[in-house]
Amino acid sequence: MKIGIIGFGAIGFDVAHKLDKEPSSFNVIGVHSRTKDKIIEKSVSFNSPLKYLELDEICSECDLIIDCAPKEAFKNIVLKCLKYKTKLITVSGAGILENIELINKARENSTQIFLASGAIIGLDGLSAVSEGEVELVKMITRKPPNALIKSKFVLEKKIVLDNLNQPKLIFSDNAFEGAKAFPANVNVAAAVGLAGIGAKKTHLEIWADPNLTKNTHSVIVKSDSSNFKIEIENIQSKENPGTGKITALSVIACLRGILSSLKVGT
Amino acid sequence: MKIGIIGFGAIGFDVAHKLDKEPSSFNVIGVHSRTKDKIIEKSVSFNSPLKYLELDEICSECDLIIDCAPKEAFKNIVLKCLKYKTKLITVSGAGILENIELINKARENSTQIFLASGAIIGLDGLSAVSEGEVELVKMITRKPPNALIKSKFVLEKKIVLDNLNQPKLIFSDNAFEGAKAFPANVNVAAAVGLAGIGAKKTHLEIWADPNLTKNTHSVIVKSDSSNFKIEIENIQSKENPGTGKITALSVIACLRGILSSLKVGT
Repeated sequence: MKIGIIGFGAIGFDVAHKLDKEPSSFNVIGVHSRTKDKIIEKSVSFNSPLKYLELDEICSECDLIIDCAPKEAFKNIVLKCLKYKTKLITVSGAGILENIELINKARENSTQIFLASGAIIGLDGLSAVSEGEVELVKMITRKPPNALIKSKFVLEKKIVLDNLNQPKLIFSDNAFEGAKAFPANVNVAAAVGLAGIGAKKTHLEIWADPNLTKNTHSVIVKSDSSNFKIEIENIQSKENPGTGKITALSVIACLRGILSSLKVGT
Repeated sequence: MKIGIIGFGAIGFDVAHKLDKEPSSFNVIGVHSRTKDKIIEKSVSFNSPLKYLELDEICSECDLIIDCAPKEAFKNIVLKCLKYKTKLITVSGAGILENIELINKARENSTQIFLASGAIIGLDGLSAVSEGEVELVKMITRKPPNALIKSKFVLEKKIVLDNLNQPKLIFSDNAFEGAKAFPANVNVAAAVGLAGIGAKKTHLEIWADPNLTKNTHSVIVKSDSSNFKIEIENIQSKENPGTGKITALSVIACLRGILSSLKVGT
């Protein structure tokens, strides 16, 4: 299966770098990005030099595209993948929500779109319980105050986060509103909504917690088949502190699942 | 896509019953089980009567088989699915471990095998972090004493669980040994091992806890990309108290992911 990568920021680079170490498993034939020169410069240490391809070229020549581009590019990438019947892996839950009608045409275009779990885990459990009756999906995001002071919501609402000596609840509403107020959380909120009962029915709390140095997410689920709780603390990627290292790894795990004899996990 | 179900116990019946409610999404063409008469009797209230098919018939006529049969039947089902290039969904992590060489031939036989998450969740996170460096995977299973008194390990080791007034640790070793000592846990242990760093490197503790009425599982993971914890309490299925309701739902979620335009979760 011929693989192409679109976007070469923190996630795209990490994915390409990992795939380069397993050439017998992954046949990466090219990369597309807005910054052509950066690809050549950044992949100089790779075992296999990366080839730059134009968007139409990469989507038509590959069997599978890994989308690591900014959300603004997402719709166009989906359109090209539908046109050329190319599979697509993405972590852009937000992009999917904004283009859901297009996404739902993948099957009739003989292709499929895969949303990797990205910075969150347990989407297997969420999709399973959502086949039954779900009473509650609640996400609780806790961040150090300095990770929140520049956020749109905190600035607009003039929320004071200086000298906190205990955790402060700064947002409590549904995940749909939460994704708008806190764009940094948008993909996690969208993914939890898509796997579960929808972002509008998913409750979201955001806390500024002076005792933390890392961002953490909890997801609490009550249903007629299972009650569960997930707590996750992600380690930042070197290149972009806004992106967790697990995001690129989830893309690779998703790709391996598609290519392998055995796909483990719902 | 033509779907066949093999096995008609608690899981097979629940799966068939759910799929029967969505005939426009799921084209179930038949069922195979050791108990042919039971199928007709138990599906009498279904919208579409279930057709009994022999094993060779169901595996050759269907594009996808859902395996809900006892583990003893697993190898033969896999062989037939490889022969007829039929996709296979299972929750038999134990069956997969025992037949891993056969399983790894799926791709060269133009098919694929899907292990649904079954009674556990977070296999998306486990497979993602396992693309990096994993320091620890630890499972902690807690059960009411009466759910453990008849287990092979407790009987052989003559462990006394009467009149406990606090939780008692009865097993602490790797998940590979745990699956042998506690066959009731075998699929969960195998699935966590397969998604993560292998059952032999996965630590397992089993506790008898007099404060509990339900079985619970925790999974603790430490890695270079993410640290996370999962706690899950499953609700028993009506027909078989040994099987959680979530197991059949995870099979349906897995099937929906294969058939849909959008597959949510790694």
